[in-house]
Amino acid sequence: MTYFPNVEKIKYEGSNTTNQFAFRHYNSEEIVLGKPMKEHLRFAIAYWHTMTQDGSDPFGNPINQRPWFGKTPMETARNRVEAFFEICEKLGAEYFCFHDVDIAPEGESLAEFFANLDEITDLIKEKMDQTGVKLLWNTANMFSNARFVNGAASTNNAEVYAIAAAQVKKGLDISKKLGGQNYVFWGGREGYETLLNTNMSFEQENIARLFKMAVAYGEKISHKPQFLIEPKPKEPAKHQYDFDAATTMAFIQKYGLEGDLKLNLEANHATLAGHTFEHEIAVARSYDALGSLDANQGDVLLGWDTDEFPTNIYDVTLAMYEVLENGGIAPGGINFDSKVRRSSFEVDDLLLAHIAGMDTFARGLKSAAKLKEDGFFDRLKEERYASFEKGIGKKIVENQENLESLTEYALSHDEPTMTSSHIEYIKNLLNDYLV
Amino acid sequence: MTYFPNVEKIKYEGSNTTNQFAFRHYNSEEIVLGKPMKEHLRFAIAYWHTMTQDGSDPFGNPINQRPWFGKTPMETARNRVEAFFEICEKLGAEYFCFHDVDIAPEGESLAEFFANLDEITDLIKEKMDQTGVKLLWNTANMFSNARFVNGAASTNNAEVYAIAAAQVKKGLDISKKLGGQNYVFWGGREGYETLLNTNMSFEQENIARLFKMAVAYGEKISHKPQFLIEPKPKEPAKHQYDFDAATTMAFIQKYGLEGDLKLNLEANHATLAGHTFEHEIAVARSYDALGSLDANQGDVLLGWDTDEFPTNIYDVTLAMYEVLENGGIAPGGINFDSKVRRSSFEVDDLLLAHIAGMDTFARGLKSAAKLKEDGFFDRLKEERYASFEKGIGKKIVENQENLESLTEYALSHDEPTMTSSHIEYIKNLLNDYLV
Amino acid sequence: MTYFPNVEKIKYEGSNTTNQFAFRHYNSEEIVLGKPMKEHLRFAIAYWHTMTQDGSDPFGNPINQRPWFGKTPMETARNRVEAFFEICEKLGAEYFCFHDVDIAPEGESLAEFFANLDEITDLIKEKMDQTGVKLLWNTANMFSNARFVNGAASTNNAEVYAIAAAQVKKGLDISKKLGGQNYVFWGGREGYETLLNTNMSFEQENIARLFKMAVAYGEKISHKPQFLIEPKPKEPAKHQYDFDAATTMAFIQKYGLEGDLKLNLEANHATLAGHTFEHEIAVARSYDALGSLDANQGDVLLGWDTDEFPTNIYDVTLAMYEVLENGGIAPGGINFDSKVRRSSFEVDDLLLAHIAGMDTFARGLKSAAKLKEDGFFDRLKEERYASFEKGIGKKIVENQENLESLTEYALSHDEPTMTSSHIEYIKNLLNDYLV
Amino acid sequence: MTYFPNVEKIKYEGSNTTNQFAFRHYNSEEIVLGKPMKEHLRFAIAYWHTMTQDGSDPFGNPINQRPWFGKTPMETARNRVEAFFEICEKLGAEYFCFHDVDIAPEGESLAEFFANLDEITDLIKEKMDQTGVKLLWNTANMFSNARFVNGAASTNNAEVYAIAAAQVKKGLDISKKLGGQNYVFWGGREGYETLLNTNMSFEQENIARLFKMAVAYGEKISHKPQFLIEPKPKEPAKHQYDFDAATTMAFIQKYGLEGDLKLNLEANHATLAGHTFEHEIAVARSYDALGSLDANQGDVLLGWDTDEFPTNIYDVTLAMYEVLENGGIAPGGINFDSKVRRSSFEVDDLLLAHIAGMDTFARGLKSAAKLKEDGFFDRLKEERYASFEKGIGKKIVENQENLESLTEYALSHDEPTMTSSHIEYIKNLLNDYLV
Repeated sequence: MTYFPNVEKIKYEGSNTTNQFAFRHYNSEEIVLGKPMKEHLRFAIAYWHTMTQDGSDPFGNPINQRPWFGKTPMETARNRVEAFFEICEKLGAEYFCFHDVDIAPEGESLAEFFANLDEITDLIKEKMDQTGVKLLWNTANMFSNARFVNGAASTNNAEVYAIAAAQVKKGLDISKKLGGQNYVFWGGREGYETLLNTNMSFEQENIARLFKMAVAYGEKISHKPQFLIEPKPKEPAKHQYDFDAATTMAFIQKYGLEGDLKLNLEANHATLAGHTFEHEIAVARSYDALGSLDANQGDVLLGWDTDEFPTNIYDVTLAMYEVLENGGIAPGGINFDSKVRRSSFEVDDLLLAHIAGMDTFARGLKSAAKLKEDGFFDRLKEERYASFEKGIGKKIVENQENLESLTEYALSHDEPTMTSSHIEYIKNLLNDYLV
Repeated sequence: MTYFPNVEKIKYEGSNTTNQFAFRHYNSEEIVLGKPMKEHLRFAIAYWHTMTQDGSDPFGNPINQRPWFGKTPMETARNRVEAFFEICEKLGAEYFCFHDVDIAPEGESLAEFFANLDEITDLIKEKMDQTGVKLLWNTANMFSNARFVNGAASTNNAEVYAIAAAQVKKGLDISKKLGGQNYVFWGGREGYETLLNTNMSFEQENIARLFKMAVAYGEKISHKPQFLIEPKPKEPAKHQYDFDAATTMAFIQKYGLEGDLKLNLEANHATLAGHTFEHEIAVARSYDALGSLDANQGDVLLGWDTDEFPTNIYDVTLAMYEVLENGGIAPGGINFDSKVRRSSFEVDDLLLAHIAGMDTFARGLKSAAKLKEDGFFDRLKEERYASFEKGIGKKIVENQENLESLTEYALSHDEPTMTSSHIEYIKNLLNDYLV
Repeated sequence: MTYFPNVEKIKYEGSNTTNQFAFRHYNSEEIVLGKPMKEHLRFAIAYWHTMTQDGSDPFGNPINQRPWFGKTPMETARNRVEAFFEICEKLGAEYFCFHDVDIAPEGESLAEFFANLDEITDLIKEKMDQTGVKLLWNTANMFSNARFVNGAASTNNAEVYAIAAAQVKKGLDISKKLGGQNYVFWGGREGYETLLNTNMSFEQENIARLFKMAVAYGEKISHKPQFLIEPKPKEPAKHQYDFDAATTMAFIQKYGLEGDLKLNLEANHATLAGHTFEHEIAVARSYDALGSLDANQGDVLLGWDTDEFPTNIYDVTLAMYEVLENGGIAPGGINFDSKVRRSSFEVDDLLLAHIAGMDTFARGLKSAAKLKEDGFFDRLKEERYASFEKGIGKKIVENQENLESLTEYALSHDEPTMTSSHIEYIKNLLNDYLV
Repeated sequence: MTYFPNVEKIKYEGSNTTNQFAFRHYNSEEIVLGKPMKEHLRFAIAYWHTMTQDGSDPFGNPINQRPWFGKTPMETARNRVEAFFEICEKLGAEYFCFHDVDIAPEGESLAEFFANLDEITDLIKEKMDQTGVKLLWNTANMFSNARFVNGAASTNNAEVYAIAAAQVKKGLDISKKLGGQNYVFWGGREGYETLLNTNMSFEQENIARLFKMAVAYGEKISHKPQFLIEPKPKEPAKHQYDFDAATTMAFIQKYGLEGDLKLNLEANHATLAGHTFEHEIAVARSYDALGSLDANQGDVLLGWDTDEFPTNIYDVTLAMYEVLENGGIAPGGINFDSKVRRSSFEVDDLLLAHIAGMDTFARGLKSAAKLKEDGFFDRLKEERYASFEKGIGKKIVENQENLESLTEYALSHDEPTMTSSHIEYIKNLLNDYLV
């Protein structure tokens, strides 16, 4: 059966196409810097925004028109698997991501939930085998259920902690079953509502403890996906412990988890924390901790997470440049953690919005590749830092100087000559690459 | 001579006083939790805001009326020393802080600057001996001079780096001369204008290198003040590397500087980074890195650093509670990194504004002490985390559980009972403590 | 029957009470500035946050424990009426507010919805008669139903506009039936998702048109509540037309609605627009358009509407001072458009949170009254603007000067003498009033 | 003489040029929608950022290298005129803008200031005649001088008000002398530091009074430039009365100034107020009050006015689309209220940065023209609002319906059919226009 009877597998038709269901810029097999676009981009479709999001918001009822509702939650869950893999295939996306609660109903008990997960993951495995679509990452949703009101790993309630642990174990079992390449932790409730009643150190120790249990269990079952933490500063919590990339690296180092955890970075989470997306990626890279990317965009004039499909070529080009500098994103990928705007409530918008996102990333990749081939940024930086390649600069970076020797140097030399960065000129040149 | 001929040493007169130059709440010798208020608060006066700030802003000319201008920059500098110590004494503040450029003119060369510093610090030493006022911390201003446009330790220009190193050496020599208890690094230009031309890792390595040189030099001269980094997210730089407490701890750990550097935290810097002041203090404490505090307040509806004198009792009470929990702030202190608003341009406002700040901290200390004596927060947290004191919770924190055992526990127990935090009720009770 | 069997009518017990269900500061009959507190404050309870809010958020499931769910939506609706009036009575709140959808289920059709409304409003009328509780205002929810995705009065769909008009008519009929003193318009979807597809002028004309129809209908049925617009800058819409008080006044003037519409101002909406609550009230007053207040508070470090119960004494005192300056808020009132935090999910929190809010307003009222009695602000302003009471200043405000005469004056006089505002000193004094 | 000996008049060389001093996209005579680019764009150079800005910031000393400093302030002022017109000519910008204090030193008295202005404007008039460069607008700086600390027209000091009036008179005299096409009011200090000591209504009445005096004086001297108010929400003031376009329109209407005042809108001021630039333009247009544009861009992750040269093609395209919809911007223009970043301190950066800005606007104009020619937005909106062109919709806009008739309509029709906005698809198409 099909949920999109009128849509064929979506193809590249170039920027002049008038077919709504065609890529204007993404051409999966086109070679960029020596390999096909799709290998650079490793696109993943997010189960939650695509399958379960209903278009409600804090002031509005559900609105999304979705043809896959069945008579029971489990029938709906099975229909969703069908629809989801049809979407992945039609878009030509080779990876996907999900939370446990996205794919199967929680039922009346944890045991029932786990049984539901077993049934649905059997079905998913079948579809994966049929289609070749692979699991980029899965995760346990430990923020929606009421029990997680005060956190999961950071909860004040030990019994809730046990349930969180059980969900993580199940998540890793599923990861093994489906050959997951990464496993993500996003701590939507790992933070605080108010410091007045919070023991921050205690809660963070408990979070570290759960991560260590997860690593140990992965080793025990001989399944070692790359573990990833996804930073976000706030929402739903007033403050989330994994505020941004740097904060998360402080935590990782404090608990000696450097070898075990990398970062899954999201564009909208970056801007909510006051950073650009490329900043967060650069920070992660400086700690050798770039894991995977959640592709979306926020509205910088709004203070909440809008998770819009990425369409801004500036942001995506700079993000992709960092990815190229990193030597690629694998085993991570580019996961569309993006939801259609509430006014895009028709089912076809799921395809149209992904096309927009994939086209934008294709443009970003091509611009970034050209910047790299031309050595645009390399040359800029080489000239800019040239003084550290010779003389006193070289000795500084080789640790041959100290405060006294540098004082002597400074006192015996004239005021340094400064050179303008000509940043406006650079930005004008950059515009020619972007578009 | 005197610059405030009409003002006596300022005394505590209680909240009903109508004397402008009296404390309404700060009573230096009043015993709070077993020691005099002044020992809890260790107030410091900031040389820059008090002596050199002229009231200009990006759209406005200087306005402050200051009676200490002489015929030459050095005469002015000498007058300022006189005036400054008169202010410290009249306020009864036992500590002070300064940047090198605050106290002496930079002159035409680094050598001239250093000679000026020598002359003025001789004078300062004399006044310190006379008055008993002590140096909480000093620092090198490595952000105002044009040469630091692209950073000091993070500059792209090796010769600028050498000058920065020379200023730090001089700063440490001065610290030794004056018996400084701490030495601060605030990296106003250690960050970037744009990532387009920035090598973030290279720059941060150079920053770490300078810190290590400073630590080594302190050891060499047998003067070991507590080194402190002061986080701020942005302004003047578009992005500053020491974004907030957690980011700075990530850096400190990356470069193995945990034993050498702690944090100097500022209220307005916290809010610019999206945090409360008490959050930043709590983060520092969780890394055992609370060094000292810069007391001021921002306007949360404005996006720049206003450095207003602290008058909000809520914020100050919660900050002081963290200080009490920390067992005090020494060898750090509470430094008024606060400037009079532009409309408070008379010289008397320097005293009136400090009185306001000191009164507010006195109120905050007393409220925090009462909260502590009553065990208000302790009791709250004890009840809230009680499930980790026994049974499965106790075993979790004792590392006796793993994913499998916790799964077994979760599957064999009913859904946990949740308890409300009653946070509105708590806040209503808290109001009775605050005021 | 009762939903709060263990709670008596809540009384004033003073600030030392340890009874959770007692007012610490609100004493309804206490005389302040010549009349009982309750007449100043005119507290109203909001049906939506109290009765229908379920504690869900964009990342979390419902959590609130509420004992009034019945077997059918209408049974639940009837139970809610019982519970609601019990809450009003126990709190001693004499007013209430609601949206149409709060009180009755929408059913399968507009006709069914209206029939449900008729039935429930009969019940409400009965309870009003029994208890003496009065309707401060009602409104039509024209933002939650999916049909309003692109606005109600500003919709692009004429049929949706007709439904909005029908809901407003029904709202006015209900207002007449229940003796409503005001009628509110809050345009949660009256704005845009993107300007790309929006005709702003056309949409605003349609909004004005609906307001005129409402005014006309009120006249026709001889029921003239005060019509109020409630500004909010954004959320749910990306941009809402009634951004803030001033924006709304621009609209009101453009369409000649000054005589018909005033403003209902909300604290959290003010801060989302970048203003203090007292600013918004002062703006409304400057246009003689202060209608009513929605009492709550936001978290200024978060970018979305948290609608927290007000507990900040600073904000509430300054708001109440404006109310006193206005000669009171009637026929408006102080409506708790406040929701319990998600972690306050027990039913008792509904009472505890209102107690906190009412206590805070009681404190604010008393502080504001004392400021007024002492002429604290009056004296400040009188001195500050004294130069306009005589000489050239008097002639300016009497319109006897022009550019030429003032130029002559300026050229023939010395530079004016300036006086400091001593704002830090003022704030320190103010603290003694607040607490 | 020349200040840029190595730079010829700057020409269009196309996007592949490697000449730093060439336009890559701006081709002044190229015909777009029937007229030369330069007539659409009416570029103006701002005297302040170009001539007097020194590169200092709140934490940094002056840095800009400028070759025009003379031995006296007046010699510098004369040199600046030379340099400025050379810049205008080399860039081919046909308009300019200035504040009084930009062009001449204030001296020791108002009389001296006015004499200086007379001398320099004689020189400027000469250069205008020689070069054909025209005055887009001038204004009086009534915010930098210390006397304006509490406002100019909104000051609490009547003598300061007189000086402001004198500066406005002088500004209008200069406007007449130089044939100014517009006259601008930007109220950097017209607002408040705190509401505690502010009489908002009184201050706004005084502002309106000054505007009326200015209009009257223009009539008297038979010189009627278009008067413009420039909104900005804050900075330097904590709150500025002309917060944004809508707020300013509320004020204009309140004081009956609709016929006399339009708006000068700035991109960075828009974002500081929480709006896009195109939003502010659209609001102004909806009140028939679009006057002129200040071209720059802010950094949406920073909370202060950065006044960067505009290089974002998205923003500029949407702004230019509004300008085209408006039938052009004359007698206003596009004034580069943009300053080089502090790291662009060489004098050549003044040219390079303007080239970047002008190229970006050229690209924006061309993209906007293509969108218009293709009817891209027109078609979108036509379809979207089609329901108001016929049937019930048509009757609504023709004011033939009322609440009762619409209720009848709604009750007798089925739930309306909704159509998705497909906004992600639209944005993907739009990208092909932008680049």
